[in-house]
Amino acid sequence: MRDAVLALDVVLGDGRRIRTGRTTAKGVTGYDLTSLFVGSEGTLGVVVEATVRLTPRPAGTQTVTATFATVTDAADTVSAILLAGLTPSTLELLDRVTLMAIDTAQGTSLGADGGAFLLVQTDGIGAESEMNMVRDILRTRAIRVESAADELKAEQLLQVRRLALPSIERLGRVLIEDIAVPRTRLSQAVDGIAEISRRTGVQIFTFAHAGDGNLHPIVLTDVAPTDPLPESVQAAIGDVFALALRLGGTLTGEHGVGILKRPWLSDELGDVGLGVQRSLKTVFDPAGILNPGKAI
Amino acid sequence: MRDAVLALDVVLGDGRRIRTGRTTAKGVTGYDLTSLFVGSEGTLGVVVEATVRLTPRPAGTQTVTATFATVTDAADTVSAILLAGLTPSTLELLDRVTLMAIDTAQGTSLGADGGAFLLVQTDGIGAESEMNMVRDILRTRAIRVESAADELKAEQLLQVRRLALPSIERLGRVLIEDIAVPRTRLSQAVDGIAEISRRTGVQIFTFAHAGDGNLHPIVLTDVAPTDPLPESVQAAIGDVFALALRLGGTLTGEHGVGILKRPWLSDELGDVGLGVQRSLKTVFDPAGILNPGKAI
Repeated sequence: MRDAVLALDVVLGDGRRIRTGRTTAKGVTGYDLTSLFVGSEGTLGVVVEATVRLTPRPAGTQTVTATFATVTDAADTVSAILLAGLTPSTLELLDRVTLMAIDTAQGTSLGADGGAFLLVQTDGIGAESEMNMVRDILRTRAIRVESAADELKAEQLLQVRRLALPSIERLGRVLIEDIAVPRTRLSQAVDGIAEISRRTGVQIFTFAHAGDGNLHPIVLTDVAPTDPLPESVQAAIGDVFALALRLGGTLTGEHGVGILKRPWLSDELGDVGLGVQRSLKTVFDPAGILNPGKAI
Repeated sequence: MRDAVLALDVVLGDGRRIRTGRTTAKGVTGYDLTSLFVGSEGTLGVVVEATVRLTPRPAGTQTVTATFATVTDAADTVSAILLAGLTPSTLELLDRVTLMAIDTAQGTSLGADGGAFLLVQTDGIGAESEMNMVRDILRTRAIRVESAADELKAEQLLQVRRLALPSIERLGRVLIEDIAVPRTRLSQAVDGIAEISRRTGVQIFTFAHAGDGNLHPIVLTDVAPTDPLPESVQAAIGDVFALALRLGGTLTGEHGVGILKRPWLSDELGDVGLGVQRSLKTVFDPAGILNPGKAI
């Protein structure tokens, strides 16, 4: 999103109105305020207009899925694909417990013969050639590789990925986490999450935008939506964040900080860094009236 | 560059040291300070370490040049290529006076049979197919289309583009300008610059990173490097900036503001926007000791 937003029209906390960025592909006049506003969770201003970059509609999309014996195999395969210089448009990973949750909810048998599932898409002019190279890598590491012969089949394969969260949600109350790690450390992250789950007894399902190193560990609890979280769950979540930071990663790949992740902010940003962030807010919102207490 | 920089280690004006960004492909913890520092021209802090994103080394590069009757034809062709959803890695344009400067300096005859020159490259897995589509568009509009059969020939074609500035510099003192416009307005920009040159009598050579809508109008003067610029030259430069802004563009596509472009800053940023930019600097550099008087 940050790369896609070119210009913003923003009303600041004190009523001043500014236009940031420009509608050109390139431009370096002044500081990049546009990137500062994107992801600021409403704490710096109210965006009243946005100009976004257009990219060509993807053509020739190829879709392939692969089943692996273990989630570590799948994660290592993602790294191998990226290290080969390939740039799939989709690289989605589902772990075994997530596959079994889908099986329970949907009557499929995805978890029967494998420990992890990878969905890969390529698009653009070289999509077919690129997918051939991806398939060569998948075949050396996967139990089974399946290619979508047509759009209907591709849609069915995509559907498996889309069913992950709704299927887990049928099992109880969920907390959707959102860490990201350097892509070379993906398999360390999935191993680490499984270890936290085993050690704490808290159920954690993991699916991931694996091509970005962005994992969604989904924590399942049996408490009611309005009840406070059990200490064991809170501790497990803290362990997941600590794991992400230990691997050189981040608390949040795309969902933002909001309220829940604030206690861990200074672990990632440092006290000085967080102090600078808070000083920045006062430039745009001197009275502190914009989404107070969130994000920073 | 802004898209490539993932993390920075920066010493601020008051000696505090912060780490911005992260080494993951994605991440949204806190405000995006990394983008704020990139392009800040040393006014916010001293960067002591930078982590940059790696992309696969381009493979299969294809190189083609085309000669056009007029620079407007060439600019319209650039728009046609982009509107067809193609994304060449290189799309460089040279106008007729630039071609003639190269001819004078290098003994070539590029300006003899055409009014503009376009250099196009594609790369990546689909490079050949993409270049075939580019070539189809070029052939309907150009006087001549030439493809590089091998790397040596491609290097010769690239050399023509690289000789542009040094060839103009042999003719006198130059001022290198750097406007960018929305890519659909490229031909209006090249026409407008030619009109300013005719009207003011100031010689302006134009080459462009046309695929980005980023033009380098090179203003030639006969005054000594240390003498002040003639009023006619200053007026012509002002007209070029006004043209860029009138077309929805920017004063600087990539070179930055420095000192020379400060008088036009508020025309682009607005007084309120510029005020916000200046307030931002005080957060990072309370005493105003970092590159004072530059950029904003």
